[in-house]
Amino acid sequence: MKFIIEPIGYVHSDRQETIDDNWNDVKSWIELNDNYSAESLAGLNEFSHVEIIYYFHKVNSADIVIKSEHPRENLNWPKVGIFSQRKKARPNLLGTTICEVIKVEDKKIYIRGLDAVDQTPVIDIKPVFKEYLPDDISKVKQPVWVSELMKNYW
Amino acid sequence: MKFIIEPIGYVHSDRQETIDDNWNDVKSWIELNDNYSAESLAGLNEFSHVEIIYYFHKVNSADIVIKSEHPRENLNWPKVGIFSQRKKARPNLLGTTICEVIKVEDKKIYIRGLDAVDQTPVIDIKPVFKEYLPDDISKVKQPVWVSELMKNYW
Repeated sequence: MKFIIEPIGYVHSDRQETIDDNWNDVKSWIELNDNYSAESLAGLNEFSHVEIIYYFHKVNSADIVIKSEHPRENLNWPKVGIFSQRKKARPNLLGTTICEVIKVEDKKIYIRGLDAVDQTPVIDIKPVFKEYLPDDISKVKQPVWVSELMKNYW
Repeated sequence: MKFIIEPIGYVHSDRQETIDDNWNDVKSWIELNDNYSAESLAGLNEFSHVEIIYYFHKVNSADIVIKSEHPRENLNWPKVGIFSQRKKARPNLLGTTICEVIKVEDKKIYIRGLDAVDQTPVIDIKPVFKEYLPDDISKVKQPVWVSELMKNYW
């Protein structure tokens, strides 16, 4: 079984290169494709956050490793499987990130904190509903290597 | 530009019907497809939450409305665009939900709170990193209609 997906728009950003860290101050905007009008974004300005689903178009699918490995090839971190990581080279090449909404104007949404480079194809935009987030973030548990890896990410 | 995506596994759940509400107590499990081994899930038991990306396979794509409309046809709620809603009938038919991990066993992950019916194709599993969530959930803003719509969802 296979499914076809198509971009609904593209990322516009100053960041051209896929580098690992310091994404926090990256401001970017998404412009919807020709087959959409501003109406598809109507009401989105009432939300503080959106979830962006995007396609890792710069990854070579031959680089996808599904077996366990050390994240970022760091031997100090345990070997973990592809579904225990958020790395780009993964089955189906989809990324998801929650971003802050700066403003919505016509067919464009301006956001802060999207970790995707310029010209990244956007597959979906979903408003963040509080009820879809964990009730208490302090109870979200993750292994130590994640906190170390994420130290300079934002 | 088009991309092809393929299921990495399927949802198994007691819930067969796509109904709108009361998803909280639904326990389900995902089993990875034949081309994956247990190694792809190695280390996932160290996370309390995962994000599941799945495909709304029961939606007829002719039912997708991208222009603004009243959510659930409720005239008390404002007309909003498709990207201001999380409804199933949407471009590319992808759903994303953060779930609690119950346990990981061999090629199966048992989860709580997945709002997807039995036999739903799973496109990706990502561990939830605290650093990818909003710093302070109390600062996440949404319009009143969302809180009303979500009242009995979980």
